[in-house]
Amino acid sequence: MTQTSTGTGIDIIVSPEGSLEVLSQDEVNRLKCTAENGQYDLLRGCALAVLNCGSHTDDSKAVLEQHKLFDIEVLQQDRGVKLKLTQAPETAFVEGEMIRGIREHLSAVLRDIVYVSNEIQHSKRFNLHDTDGITNAIFHILRNARALKPNRKPNLVVCWGGHSISREEYRYTKEVGHELGLRAMNICTGCGPGAMKGPMKGANLAHAKQRISNGRYLGISEPGIIAAESPNPIVNELVILPDIEKRLEAFVRIGHGIIVFPGGAGTAEEILYLLGILLNPENDTLPFPVIFTGPSNSKAYWQKIDQFIGLTLGEKAQKRYQIIVDDPAAVAKAMQTGIIEVENFRRAQNDAFYFNWRLKISEAFQMPFEPSHENMAGLNIHLEQPPHELAANLRRVFSGIVAGNVKAPGIIAIEKYGPFQINGSPEIMAPLDELLKSFVQQQRMKLPGTVYNPCYEIVKGC
Amino acid sequence: MTQTSTGTGIDIIVSPEGSLEVLSQDEVNRLKCTAENGQYDLLRGCALAVLNCGSHTDDSKAVLEQHKLFDIEVLQQDRGVKLKLTQAPETAFVEGEMIRGIREHLSAVLRDIVYVSNEIQHSKRFNLHDTDGITNAIFHILRNARALKPNRKPNLVVCWGGHSISREEYRYTKEVGHELGLRAMNICTGCGPGAMKGPMKGANLAHAKQRISNGRYLGISEPGIIAAESPNPIVNELVILPDIEKRLEAFVRIGHGIIVFPGGAGTAEEILYLLGILLNPENDTLPFPVIFTGPSNSKAYWQKIDQFIGLTLGEKAQKRYQIIVDDPAAVAKAMQTGIIEVENFRRAQNDAFYFNWRLKISEAFQMPFEPSHENMAGLNIHLEQPPHELAANLRRVFSGIVAGNVKAPGIIAIEKYGPFQINGSPEIMAPLDELLKSFVQQQRMKLPGTVYNPCYEIVKGC
Amino acid sequence: MTQTSTGTGIDIIVSPEGSLEVLSQDEVNRLKCTAENGQYDLLRGCALAVLNCGSHTDDSKAVLEQHKLFDIEVLQQDRGVKLKLTQAPETAFVEGEMIRGIREHLSAVLRDIVYVSNEIQHSKRFNLHDTDGITNAIFHILRNARALKPNRKPNLVVCWGGHSISREEYRYTKEVGHELGLRAMNICTGCGPGAMKGPMKGANLAHAKQRISNGRYLGISEPGIIAAESPNPIVNELVILPDIEKRLEAFVRIGHGIIVFPGGAGTAEEILYLLGILLNPENDTLPFPVIFTGPSNSKAYWQKIDQFIGLTLGEKAQKRYQIIVDDPAAVAKAMQTGIIEVENFRRAQNDAFYFNWRLKISEAFQMPFEPSHENMAGLNIHLEQPPHELAANLRRVFSGIVAGNVKAPGIIAIEKYGPFQINGSPEIMAPLDELLKSFVQQQRMKLPGTVYNPCYEIVKGC
Amino acid sequence: MTQTSTGTGIDIIVSPEGSLEVLSQDEVNRLKCTAENGQYDLLRGCALAVLNCGSHTDDSKAVLEQHKLFDIEVLQQDRGVKLKLTQAPETAFVEGEMIRGIREHLSAVLRDIVYVSNEIQHSKRFNLHDTDGITNAIFHILRNARALKPNRKPNLVVCWGGHSISREEYRYTKEVGHELGLRAMNICTGCGPGAMKGPMKGANLAHAKQRISNGRYLGISEPGIIAAESPNPIVNELVILPDIEKRLEAFVRIGHGIIVFPGGAGTAEEILYLLGILLNPENDTLPFPVIFTGPSNSKAYWQKIDQFIGLTLGEKAQKRYQIIVDDPAAVAKAMQTGIIEVENFRRAQNDAFYFNWRLKISEAFQMPFEPSHENMAGLNIHLEQPPHELAANLRRVFSGIVAGNVKAPGIIAIEKYGPFQINGSPEIMAPLDELLKSFVQQQRMKLPGTVYNPCYEIVKGC
Repeated sequence: MTQTSTGTGIDIIVSPEGSLEVLSQDEVNRLKCTAENGQYDLLRGCALAVLNCGSHTDDSKAVLEQHKLFDIEVLQQDRGVKLKLTQAPETAFVEGEMIRGIREHLSAVLRDIVYVSNEIQHSKRFNLHDTDGITNAIFHILRNARALKPNRKPNLVVCWGGHSISREEYRYTKEVGHELGLRAMNICTGCGPGAMKGPMKGANLAHAKQRISNGRYLGISEPGIIAAESPNPIVNELVILPDIEKRLEAFVRIGHGIIVFPGGAGTAEEILYLLGILLNPENDTLPFPVIFTGPSNSKAYWQKIDQFIGLTLGEKAQKRYQIIVDDPAAVAKAMQTGIIEVENFRRAQNDAFYFNWRLKISEAFQMPFEPSHENMAGLNIHLEQPPHELAANLRRVFSGIVAGNVKAPGIIAIEKYGPFQINGSPEIMAPLDELLKSFVQQQRMKLPGTVYNPCYEIVKGC
Repeated sequence: MTQTSTGTGIDIIVSPEGSLEVLSQDEVNRLKCTAENGQYDLLRGCALAVLNCGSHTDDSKAVLEQHKLFDIEVLQQDRGVKLKLTQAPETAFVEGEMIRGIREHLSAVLRDIVYVSNEIQHSKRFNLHDTDGITNAIFHILRNARALKPNRKPNLVVCWGGHSISREEYRYTKEVGHELGLRAMNICTGCGPGAMKGPMKGANLAHAKQRISNGRYLGISEPGIIAAESPNPIVNELVILPDIEKRLEAFVRIGHGIIVFPGGAGTAEEILYLLGILLNPENDTLPFPVIFTGPSNSKAYWQKIDQFIGLTLGEKAQKRYQIIVDDPAAVAKAMQTGIIEVENFRRAQNDAFYFNWRLKISEAFQMPFEPSHENMAGLNIHLEQPPHELAANLRRVFSGIVAGNVKAPGIIAIEKYGPFQINGSPEIMAPLDELLKSFVQQQRMKLPGTVYNPCYEIVKGC
Repeated sequence: MTQTSTGTGIDIIVSPEGSLEVLSQDEVNRLKCTAENGQYDLLRGCALAVLNCGSHTDDSKAVLEQHKLFDIEVLQQDRGVKLKLTQAPETAFVEGEMIRGIREHLSAVLRDIVYVSNEIQHSKRFNLHDTDGITNAIFHILRNARALKPNRKPNLVVCWGGHSISREEYRYTKEVGHELGLRAMNICTGCGPGAMKGPMKGANLAHAKQRISNGRYLGISEPGIIAAESPNPIVNELVILPDIEKRLEAFVRIGHGIIVFPGGAGTAEEILYLLGILLNPENDTLPFPVIFTGPSNSKAYWQKIDQFIGLTLGEKAQKRYQIIVDDPAAVAKAMQTGIIEVENFRRAQNDAFYFNWRLKISEAFQMPFEPSHENMAGLNIHLEQPPHELAANLRRVFSGIVAGNVKAPGIIAIEKYGPFQINGSPEIMAPLDELLKSFVQQQRMKLPGTVYNPCYEIVKGC
Repeated sequence: MTQTSTGTGIDIIVSPEGSLEVLSQDEVNRLKCTAENGQYDLLRGCALAVLNCGSHTDDSKAVLEQHKLFDIEVLQQDRGVKLKLTQAPETAFVEGEMIRGIREHLSAVLRDIVYVSNEIQHSKRFNLHDTDGITNAIFHILRNARALKPNRKPNLVVCWGGHSISREEYRYTKEVGHELGLRAMNICTGCGPGAMKGPMKGANLAHAKQRISNGRYLGISEPGIIAAESPNPIVNELVILPDIEKRLEAFVRIGHGIIVFPGGAGTAEEILYLLGILLNPENDTLPFPVIFTGPSNSKAYWQKIDQFIGLTLGEKAQKRYQIIVDDPAAVAKAMQTGIIEVENFRRAQNDAFYFNWRLKISEAFQMPFEPSHENMAGLNIHLEQPPHELAANLRRVFSGIVAGNVKAPGIIAIEKYGPFQINGSPEIMAPLDELLKSFVQQQRMKLPGTVYNPCYEIVKGC
């Protein structure tokens, strides 16, 4: 498990597994073409992330650096498509054969990049400037990945939280996953280490104990983050959404409830996204269980988050979640209770179980946010706007910080132009500053052991 | 099994089964729209055929007549789509519940009609005026129906032959199916009674004896013929291609070998189609096992067919098939041997097992032929053309006769304008006339017990 | 299917399938020993019957005659046991490989003969002179054959009737099986042709239509009858009980309802056995659906049977069955209704679904009856006894006639000593004589086409 | 996972799962009787161990003490058997329902205790004073538990080692299990914590990564040890052998290779048992891969063990194992290589894969050793005997020490009569003393955190 790549790597030709087995000649051509031209870098980056799942860094630039010679090529054959890999990380192999879970992930990556490129972006079937068109595109990406399963009762719990967490917190996420799994619930996370891996490991063990053989461990990623958060091979369904916003929408439409563990900027982004949507008056009557939890030492962390939400989004937002500290069984029970409400509601409304069509997500939460220095500086962060709009803007702040921390283009931009400048009402800037500082202090911005140089500055006076 | 519909019928709402379980809101809308507008008659006709599988008539006009009040409606629900049936034939039900196999067929009909309408005909993805575009469209229809299975060795035998055959011939088709099934081969036919049902029944029994639980009984139909040849519920995969030519192409691209039993005009059409393709010089080296067979009393029948082929298409065509009379085990053995050659060839060429991309089919065999009186009269039936082109034209002759015999528009046209006029070189017209007369005499034009009024006249002098 | 054995036969070594895969060295030894010594003739006879399933004779002497050179030997290997066959009938093979269903039957035969010999007869675990001990032995034989399935709802319908029936009656049994299968019921018969094969074929087809992949076709045979009634390979569970009485008890304890088709002496034996048990006052409140049925021309047959029962066993017996003529769907519906009562009763009593422990079967129906000339002549056939005792004696009359008709030792005894002498009260003898004569006349005593020489004489004066 | 029993416990009635579903009335009676009379204490003790799997003590007396009020009763019903539990440990339940894996274990315990009592000990089928009889009994116990699987290639790796090991060693056992699982090998251990749980957890995770859904985690226990080493619910097959010697024989006959991790007296017992058998000249040519392994800090431990073996059993014994330190992948590779040799050998000899009949185990290793103070003092521990006999006696020394450490009767005997007196040649006593002292010092005699009072004294002078 701690095997490290020697730098030489492995050269191999593999067949897809779990998808892409039956393609037309034309599709193989287009796939080859997509992979070689427009989307080559994207494919190479994602493939490398998937193959690199054993490594221990969250710096996508470093990963690409380390495997400079890695190459991926799509081979065209009448019998279908094959993938030719050069200098692939050795950790993906056992006795010269690729671990089957990783081979499935590799196929999933290719499948989604090509589908998004050909069917979503370059076909005219989806209006991506329109709220319904975006939701429809997300539905199609998920269905194409066979992630929408009919004839199953609601039981998919989304787990969010930091990829950089303490041993104690990691152990706790495993225990929560274990309690969820004992109750036959399935897990969906964003892939990667930490709070995204722990619940899956715990649930996998619990499913074994309960003799549940069809447990789901669904990973939802996006190209910008996958290098930093490569899917653990337990993930038995992997979907790559094209950007952060579509990935977040996929989480809230496919999941039946959400558990948030302590984390850093990414987790804060997710919380603000979620509350922003739930604060939309059209969603007022929609049941959606949300639980914030962590081990005993996370009590102060959650108090701070709760305060920040109270100060910025108000009491209505605070009513949308429960905080449960140091009690994995209670978390699982509360989630189970919440999901029963979801099931009853959907039955009453004749809604699908596999996709939450009814949830209203406004454009502000769907449109991709480009975290340029200019855009970051121009965000409207004042209290004089409806809470769900403020939430949308605060979400963008944290989204930018994540980019500056772990995404290759963000890191490069920070290196070039210095930290992002964030400004807004002092009533918000002060607690924001405090929150971010506590993240840094608690080593939530980077994997433990590395020094964190903030990619932002809070501009208070204004 | 002999239960007859009382005329009152059954009103019911059913869910799709085996397909269409996960649809977007937009797709449900389009499906409802397609079903209600453009394609309603098509859907109603096909649905009725599928529901009417227990009945014993091959006259699609009569079927529609008998169930005048039958109606089908697509209901839209967030949880997916439902089908509302009014006055549905009672034979499709047991104790008020639709037989599961029939429910699957109904879903398949809806799936294919909507797919063909939306994705093939009204999208711009396929150039249907181009040979590659047509083949590509067929591939997509088959794949959308999940009829292309990866990771299986070649073993799919297409069985052609009359739907109107004698008890003795029917028994023989069952025995051949039985011998094929004992050797683990699967069956593909055009649905319907007679030679299309017998091999499936025989194989189903043999698969039970060999404890093969995943036997395939693939039915490939088209809207114009399905009413006359409704799928027996043994069919566990059903695909509706949009027209005769695409259906024939589907047979030869998905099947690994073809057995032809005695039949009438439809069977002659199929034989000429197949030989026309195999005579294409580009297919000279392609292995493709073809066996003509029947019980002992079919000897004269096959001699006559063989002679006709010899006279019109020549010796090269005769080398493309074997004739085996009254020996089911020998037929199965010869097919097995032939398919091993196919497997070896495809392995050597790195070709897919599930779709025969390499087979060259020229435009003359792909373009739909409209059997109007004018088109029938204008066919070029002379020896002064390459054999495969003559085959294409002869194929059209029989295609027209099938339409005049059993398809609703054809029957109406004949009622209105009288029989088709067929003319050409006397060297062909004489044996053609003889062949057709023998079909009539042997009751191969209609189900036994009904009187046949020819829908054509051979115009000899020319 | 009509392939006939050439007399040369096939020599082969096969592995068991479906049972006997994991044996101790000691068991292999004992099995070899059992097979070579005490039980060799039994094993050889049963094995031949199973292998001979394609043939068309019901004369076990003739079967043995035809395959004089057939030999079976058990080979001992550390990896387990193998069977060496010499001159095995060719109909059991396809391209040199034994049909898998037949291989399973062969293993079942060996399994049951050895189990009965070692665990039932020569161990001291079961007191075979005691009513509970016999029932317990039957339970163990069935369980050892894995025929008792937990966690399944009652749905096993026993079908009885002649193996020598008309084409019309055979077609009818298939239709009844089809209607049962459409309603998800499973079939249990005594193996062999006619009414024992038809319902299975019909149900197999119906299960295919309903996409039921785990349909049960359970054959229960006994060594004396199996040669005359070799199991069709559709039978996917085969159990050999040691004698007629245990076989009959197995039917009534494992089945949830019984359908009787027209038949000859064997069928009459079964009817009398069944009514004799149901007339036992201890079984008065036990629900047990029994239906007598046949095609329209069976009406007179059932009237005669009904009269005979009325005259001998009385009205109470007549209330235990329904007669439904020429209506397969009504038969299946009535059976379904009856089985629901059985299910409710067993739930209320907390009784097992897989074995009817509560049914009282008195010793008179359990003790093997040896049909010697002396025993036959000495039967007490008078009205001055309780109906269920009279039923027991009448049952023995028919049991003896079956032995004289089709079982090797019976046939030999009749050849040597002439027909059995049957005598009793004239009130019974007259209708009995009439009934038997009608069986002869309707060709129910032998397969059609053979001449029947009665193996009995009714001695009327007494 | 850390939930602790409150002392009140849970009262519940459960059905068996995975075994005992189909029982005769007589068997239910005998089972009830066995459970209530002769074997009640045994059943209660084992059931408690299985239910108590979440707890953290290895002292079986303490476990029984803590759950004084726990009671188990077998309920008799026509539908089968049920288990009534009173004051059952809460850790076995989730939301009031017993974890399915634990319910299976409970059924396995009942199944094996009853089978051993009725079929092995109180029937006369097995001569338990004879070497072949004992092996045969073990075969039957394993087969009755369905642990002997035909048609599988050799891949079952037995893992031995301490239940009381350091965090570092535990992590290492997980990594070895992970590497074995990645190579599709299955795991068999003695149940319990430490080295018996780690490899299963690792393999379970690796099987998930390789999408292997039928991984085996076989636990083999015995009544005396199960309380101290209760099976983790990952164990998906559990068998209880009646005593230590039969349990050890089960390991070596069902496993295809053995890996030994560091441990205490129990591990030493296992090593001596294994080497004693492999030193038997009749086993000289039998391939049997044995690997001693541990993390880097185990180097000294293995040197000491290796020296002790060299001094007592000689070089031939040392050739029977490899020592691999701190290299999980190398361990898995070496085991894979060794098992390929086993497979080739068994194929060549036509031996079964599922049970190693050929391995010679002499009586000295089969006969139960009663570790009374007298027997312990009388052991012949001198060099003047063949190495495999010395191994047998040394094995008994460690067996006695295990009893004195963790088994209820042993603990009581030590409390009453003081430590066992062990004496023999000084050439052996000195290194033995040293070895035992090192175990104590390394906390290998008890779970960490408890103080160890030796249950033995080495009597050196002699």
